[in-house]
Amino acid sequence: LEVRIVSNAVESVPGGITAPRGFLAAGVAAAIKTPGRPDVALLVSDRPATVAGTFTTNRVQAAPVMLCRRHLAGGCARAVVINSGCANACTGPDGMRDAEQTAAWLAELLDIPVGEAFVCSTGTIGTALPMQRLEAGMREAATALASDGGEAAARAIMTTDTRPKSLAVQVRIGDRDIRVGGMAKGAGMIDPHMATMLAFLTTDAAVGGSVLQACLADVVDRSFNRISVDGDQSTNDTVLMLANGAAGGGELTEEHPDWLLFKGAVLEVATALALAIVEDGEGATKRVTVMVVEAASERDADRVARAVAGSLLVKTAWFGGDPNWGRVIAAVGYARAAVEQERIAIDFDGLPVVRGGCRVTACALEDLEAVYRKPTFTVRIALGAGNASAVIHTCDISTDYVTINADYMT
Amino acid sequence: LEVRIVSNAVESVPGGITAPRGFLAAGVAAAIKTPGRPDVALLVSDRPATVAGTFTTNRVQAAPVMLCRRHLAGGCARAVVINSGCANACTGPDGMRDAEQTAAWLAELLDIPVGEAFVCSTGTIGTALPMQRLEAGMREAATALASDGGEAAARAIMTTDTRPKSLAVQVRIGDRDIRVGGMAKGAGMIDPHMATMLAFLTTDAAVGGSVLQACLADVVDRSFNRISVDGDQSTNDTVLMLANGAAGGGELTEEHPDWLLFKGAVLEVATALALAIVEDGEGATKRVTVMVVEAASERDADRVARAVAGSLLVKTAWFGGDPNWGRVIAAVGYARAAVEQERIAIDFDGLPVVRGGCRVTACALEDLEAVYRKPTFTVRIALGAGNASAVIHTCDISTDYVTINADYMT
Repeated sequence: LEVRIVSNAVESVPGGITAPRGFLAAGVAAAIKTPGRPDVALLVSDRPATVAGTFTTNRVQAAPVMLCRRHLAGGCARAVVINSGCANACTGPDGMRDAEQTAAWLAELLDIPVGEAFVCSTGTIGTALPMQRLEAGMREAATALASDGGEAAARAIMTTDTRPKSLAVQVRIGDRDIRVGGMAKGAGMIDPHMATMLAFLTTDAAVGGSVLQACLADVVDRSFNRISVDGDQSTNDTVLMLANGAAGGGELTEEHPDWLLFKGAVLEVATALALAIVEDGEGATKRVTVMVVEAASERDADRVARAVAGSLLVKTAWFGGDPNWGRVIAAVGYARAAVEQERIAIDFDGLPVVRGGCRVTACALEDLEAVYRKPTFTVRIALGAGNASAVIHTCDISTDYVTINADYMT
Repeated sequence: LEVRIVSNAVESVPGGITAPRGFLAAGVAAAIKTPGRPDVALLVSDRPATVAGTFTTNRVQAAPVMLCRRHLAGGCARAVVINSGCANACTGPDGMRDAEQTAAWLAELLDIPVGEAFVCSTGTIGTALPMQRLEAGMREAATALASDGGEAAARAIMTTDTRPKSLAVQVRIGDRDIRVGGMAKGAGMIDPHMATMLAFLTTDAAVGGSVLQACLADVVDRSFNRISVDGDQSTNDTVLMLANGAAGGGELTEEHPDWLLFKGAVLEVATALALAIVEDGEGATKRVTVMVVEAASERDADRVARAVAGSLLVKTAWFGGDPNWGRVIAAVGYARAAVEQERIAIDFDGLPVVRGGCRVTACALEDLEAVYRKPTFTVRIALGAGNASAVIHTCDISTDYVTINADYMT
C-alpha cells in the first residue's frame, strides 16, 4: 500500500505489522476457507505489549468480539490469532466456548497468560469453527512465526478481498525511530460506526494503555469510521493496536513534544488501510470521496455525506459513468439535515455542476461524465448553512457486487 | 392488478381510476420520453371534486410538488396532468414557471379555474420540460378523454416500470355502490417516508376535504409508506386522491356507520398499488415482506424492519437464493433498536431458522434455500422485547437493478 505522506518526518517502510521491532507474524492454510488459501494468521509480540481496541456497535456481536472486549480489560497483549472463512457469530454458548478454547490453545502454544491471547474471526455468520483444523493451523503458524511474516499474515485474513492490505511507516521521535505497522481486511459488510471489519496496528513505541486507547479511538473515528462500502455493519468489526516499546526510549504520553507526530503516523497507517478497504470493496471499480462543507452542524454534515455515499442510485450511476447528478442532490435532500435547496452547490473534482440547487447551464454533461469515468474523484457538497464539515470515503456498486453477494454461502 | 379482498363487502371492478363515475382519463405519446411511448396522462372529473394529497418529505422538492401543495390549499380539483420522462426537479424559477404554465394550459383547455388544475412530473432530475411537446400532448389527450381511459393513463405515467399499475374496487355503502380506483408508478428511487413516487386515487363518494385528507394520510402511512425498493427517496413523490360524489348519496364522514368500510376499500386499493410497485421494482425478481413483532416500541419495530428491508447484503442474497440468514440478523443488530441477541427468533415463511439468536440446528439450509427461491415470502422477526410490530414490503436487488441504474441518463 502507498501512504499519503503528509509530514516530512514520516517515511514509508516495508514489513507491515512486523515492521515495528519485536513483532513476529505468520499466515498459513488450514482448510477453514477454500482449501489451499491461507486462513489462519498469528501476530505475536516478543515482549508484553499494551493493547487498545475498538469494536462493532452492532447489537449482534460475534463470540471473538466478546472475548476480545473481556481480555482488553487486562490491558496487555502478547498474541492475536485471526481466522478467515468463519465469523463464529450467532453461534451461542458453543461459539463462546470455541473462542475461549482458541485463546487457551494460543496461550499454551506460546507459553503466555491466557488473558494476553486475543482471538478474531471473519467469514460466514452462523457456522461453527472447525476446531481441529484451526488447532492444526495454529500449531503450523506458531512454527512459521517470523519477523518478516507481516505480508503472509495480511494474506491469511482476506475473505472476498482481492489483495492484501498491509503497510508501515517510520517517524523520528526524540533519538529513536518509531515504527507503526498495520494490516486490514474488507471487503463487504463494511459500514463501521465504531470500528471496521478487522484491522491490526502495531508499534514499537512504549505507550500506556489508556493513552493508547484514547489515541486509537480518535484515529479510528477519523479513518475506519469514515468509510462505507455497502451500508451493512458487521457483527465482527474489530481494530486492535499493540504497542510493545521495543524501539526503546521512554513512554510516549500526550504531553510528549512529538506526540502529535506519533499520532499522525498512526493516523496515516489507519487512513491508508481504510482507503484500501474502500478501493477493494466488493466489486468496486472506483473510489469516491464525499465531502460536505458549510453544514449547520457536524451531525448534519455527517448525515448528508453518509446519505450520498450510501445511495444505491448514486453508487450505480458512478459504476456506469452515468452523469446523473440529480441523484446526488436527491440524497442530500432526504438526509434529514437542515438543507435549503436554493443554497446547495455541488462540485465534482472541481467541476461546478450545481449552484443554487439547479444545474449550472454552462456545465456540459460530457464533462461530468469524464469525471465519473475516473478511478477516483471527489464530490464536494456545500450546504451554505454553516461552518461544519464531514468526509466519507466510499466506492461504487457494480453488477459484480450483486453477483458476489448473490452467491456467497452456496 | 389483483386485490386481496379482505372483506366480502368489497369487490374488484375493472376500469382503474375511471371506474368511479364521473371520471375521464387519457394517455398519449408526446415524445417527452422515448418517442412512441405514452408519456402524458390526463385525469379529469366531470364535476368539482374534493382533493387530498401527501408529498415527499425530501428537502429537495420538484416544482410540480410545490405547485400541487399550493393548489391543494384550495381544496378542490377538476383535473390532473401527469408527464413521465422529465421530473422538472432542481430546475429553479424556470421550472416553477413551466409547472405554472402547464396548469394554466390545463385550465384553459378544460375551462376550469387554474387552482383546480394539478400538475405532476416524473423522470430525470434537472432537465427542463419540453414545453411545446407537452402542450401538444395535452391537447391530444384532452380530445382523447374517455370514461374507460384509466388503463391508458396508467401506461402513460410509467418510467422504468415494466407494467402499468391500475385497479378499482366497489363497496356497498347505504343504498349506493361506491367505487374507488387507483393507479401508480414506480419503479426506482422508492423509499417513501410520507408518500410514494406517483399514485392517484379516485372515488365517486362524496367526502369533505379535511375528512378525505385525514383518510388519505392514514391510508398512505399504512400502504405506500410501508414499501421500499432501493432506499432512495424521490424529489417528486406525490399521492393525490379525488372524491367527486358522482355516486350520489350523502357526504361520507367518519361518523357514518360504513366509514370503515369505505376507508378499508381505499386501503385495499392503496395497498395493492404499493405491493405492485415493489413487485415491479427495478430489476426485482421477488417480493419480500419483513414483519417485526415483539418489539419494545413501534419505532424500534420500524427501524428493524427498515434495516433488514434496506440491507444490500440481505437483498442480494434474496436475489441469488443464497440462504444467508446471518445477514438478516446482522441487520437486526445494527438497526439502532433495543435488541437482545439471545432473544431473537427468525422465521422464513414459517420455517424456524433462528431461535435465541442462534441457528436452529434441526433446520437444513436447503429448506431455507427453497423459501428464498419463491417469488414471494415473509421474513418474521420476533425480538422478545415487547408488543409492538411493523411491516415493510420490499424486493430483492439484482444485477439488472445495477445495469438499469448504471445507464439511466445516457
